[in-house]
Amino acid sequence: MTTDTIVTAAMLAIGDELLSGRTKDKNIGHLADLLTISGIDLKEVRIVADDEEAIVAALNGLRGQYDYVFTSGGIGPTHDDITADAVSRAFGVECIHDPDAMTLLGDMYARRNMDFTEARRRMARMPNGSTHIPNAVSTAPGFVIGNVHVMAGVPQVFQAMLEAVLPTLKTGATVLSRSVQSPFGEGDIGGPLGDVQKAHPQTSIGSYPKFDGTSFSTELVIRARDETILAAAEADVRAMLEGIAASRRT
Amino acid sequence: MTTDTIVTAAMLAIGDELLSGRTKDKNIGHLADLLTISGIDLKEVRIVADDEEAIVAALNGLRGQYDYVFTSGGIGPTHDDITADAVSRAFGVECIHDPDAMTLLGDMYARRNMDFTEARRRMARMPNGSTHIPNAVSTAPGFVIGNVHVMAGVPQVFQAMLEAVLPTLKTGATVLSRSVQSPFGEGDIGGPLGDVQKAHPQTSIGSYPKFDGTSFSTELVIRARDETILAAAEADVRAMLEGIAASRRT
Repeated sequence: MTTDTIVTAAMLAIGDELLSGRTKDKNIGHLADLLTISGIDLKEVRIVADDEEAIVAALNGLRGQYDYVFTSGGIGPTHDDITADAVSRAFGVECIHDPDAMTLLGDMYARRNMDFTEARRRMARMPNGSTHIPNAVSTAPGFVIGNVHVMAGVPQVFQAMLEAVLPTLKTGATVLSRSVQSPFGEGDIGGPLGDVQKAHPQTSIGSYPKFDGTSFSTELVIRARDETILAAAEADVRAMLEGIAASRRT
Repeated sequence: MTTDTIVTAAMLAIGDELLSGRTKDKNIGHLADLLTISGIDLKEVRIVADDEEAIVAALNGLRGQYDYVFTSGGIGPTHDDITADAVSRAFGVECIHDPDAMTLLGDMYARRNMDFTEARRRMARMPNGSTHIPNAVSTAPGFVIGNVHVMAGVPQVFQAMLEAVLPTLKTGATVLSRSVQSPFGEGDIGGPLGDVQKAHPQTSIGSYPKFDGTSFSTELVIRARDETILAAAEADVRAMLEGIAASRRT
């Protein structure tokens, strides 16, 4: 595996409600799951408020560092939906009522005999030069500009947009993973596990304590982009655990 | 309300598992809830991997910008727990086996007839000059250095540490909030709601669409630090909704 098979991404979740506790984010974990399956490494997530300065600063901090940036939130029809303005400013382009989005939304509201209000027209706003991300749930599109994919915050809509986006992305070698349950706590296995990690530098071995209210056990997750490398590390992890178990039986 | 009653904070959640999707974070929402209740404004959250460069960069990006930074994760006994090293490097101080933490942990393992292994000794490591955050669940302390509070990633332990930390923090004027349910979607209320927001600049009015699989409704959340200001905005929001309902009955 060469480094040119690595594709990286960041997420920017936008919304006061995520920072006040009113809304518990569901999009970060969903994106993480699907990017991992797709062979794209999610390297960083930021959550910022509905604040233009904060969005512009975060976006400009992320979009140069990673292959892709995915945003959630702030593209609806109300005054607190300012993501289109902020992304436009980050890219230094005008925020326009996109003609194709105006047609798409205008036709939809006409079919439903609903007014195409000024608020609803806001949902057609995007940076000049964007392409659409289709939205099978509620029609109003997300948009792509440069390497930034701007999606809705409502989880059903975010998920529908992500489904449309994923097939358009370049992907790297998928990270394969194996999970091994350890009945021992991290304090018992930490030393030998570090030795196994050192012996298998092309893997990443994560140790995740679980607490059942009384005692700790551990889930060990071995990750690698190559099946042979993965299997060798897994065998050593299992041998290490068996060694600890055997020493306790004597 | 003067601006000196505003206290700001950021969170840095650390862990490969949050970015691979293996673990769905529970600490961000919990911290957001408790800071909001305490009158501390959570302004930004970042999630980074178990990567020293990434932790140092994020921490140094955040700790100068906000009154407090809270971290989660990476303070256990295994090789992938590198938060103490990274925080030490961010502050330019040595990462030591803290003598008081060594005593605390050594005594605890002696009482339990458990070996105080090299791995377990790792849990006593922290930047030189730190103070402890007590941990009622599993003894190993978190630590405070400067304005950075370093806590565990396991939610039960994170919560116990946060409970110990909160009474030590300076707090600002609590943000009060009222929630008003709108049976109308955002496209129907977006225009008039923007007018209400403009008429009440000392409030922040959030509009949160809900989708039940068929249609959208909206939760409106009005936030302010003063009860009188809050009540006036709430009355106008309710009057606006009643106006829309009345116009539909005629």
